[in-house]
Amino acid sequence: MKKNLGPKLAVCPLPVFLVATYDREGKPNVMTVSWGGVCCSDPPCIAISVRKATHTHHALMERGAFTVNLPSREHAEAAAYFGRASGRDEDKFKKTGMTPVRSRFVDAPYIDEMPVVLECRITQISELGSHTHFVGQVLNAMTDDGIREDIPLIEQCGPIVFGMGRYYGIGDMIEPGSPV
Amino acid sequence: MKKNLGPKLAVCPLPVFLVATYDREGKPNVMTVSWGGVCCSDPPCIAISVRKATHTHHALMERGAFTVNLPSREHAEAAAYFGRASGRDEDKFKKTGMTPVRSRFVDAPYIDEMPVVLECRITQISELGSHTHFVGQVLNAMTDDGIREDIPLIEQCGPIVFGMGRYYGIGDMIEPGSPV
Repeated sequence: MKKNLGPKLAVCPLPVFLVATYDREGKPNVMTVSWGGVCCSDPPCIAISVRKATHTHHALMERGAFTVNLPSREHAEAAAYFGRASGRDEDKFKKTGMTPVRSRFVDAPYIDEMPVVLECRITQISELGSHTHFVGQVLNAMTDDGIREDIPLIEQCGPIVFGMGRYYGIGDMIEPGSPV
Repeated sequence: MKKNLGPKLAVCPLPVFLVATYDREGKPNVMTVSWGGVCCSDPPCIAISVRKATHTHHALMERGAFTVNLPSREHAEAAAYFGRASGRDEDKFKKTGMTPVRSRFVDAPYIDEMPVVLECRITQISELGSHTHFVGQVLNAMTDDGIREDIPLIEQCGPIVFGMGRYYGIGDMIEPGSPV
């Protein structure tokens, strides 16, 4: 038997995307986003949703670009902070000692300490209600030098997921899957 | 140092959404989708992306509705099969012995065996290239009777994630997070 919860976002696990942008003044900022995911293979695109009130929203509208930085489990505390604080009040890079680096392909910084980075140019914007939905075309992906292409990324970079206020690591491999 | 991979979807982990629909004839079908995620809080919405050639794409256009069913680790093999086979050629419910149940709020079936179900009505459709991007408003969520609301869902339903052709379980809790 199932019980009805009503119109509730009972979805887990959620991704942990560290979305980095430059604001109008060129100051780098970063925000943790769990409303997001891949949305197209060709061209490769990632969708993220952000509230209008955030500093990141202004930067996205201003610069038309962002990077998605994927954290490892050692960055969980920073990810929590990036989700809690606002770039309007604090310099989140300075506060965490993380290094913003200018991207090569888009007008956004990336976080040097993160093992995987995707450079995205915004191609579509839609208002959904509380959140604005941005589709970003991936112009380039980067990984740390040591990451090998013949081993699944998920087994090398120690990614984390989000579920109702907490971060979790990834567990054991269960079953070979099938292509999306 | 980072190395450039070019425009590649180096994203992990990915969600495992079992998307269930009725086709034109009313036959229930289900497809595994990893291009998707939550995209709005109010109204609560989930986005999924599907290739035009799939049987599910036709059903989505026809019925304007779908359910997202979240599998447990015991369903990893079924999830792999749902991603591999086409509802055009096979009855995926019959083949796996899973039970399609008519949803109460939308014109789509759900999978009775899955611990979490979200009933979604399509509110926005956009063509992104290889994939069509569907935004679905969550009209109702359902969980198995035994699932408690005071314990994180992620710790009760044994969800799985996808990474480059393989399924993985969720690991240990790392760090209290912050709201999205």
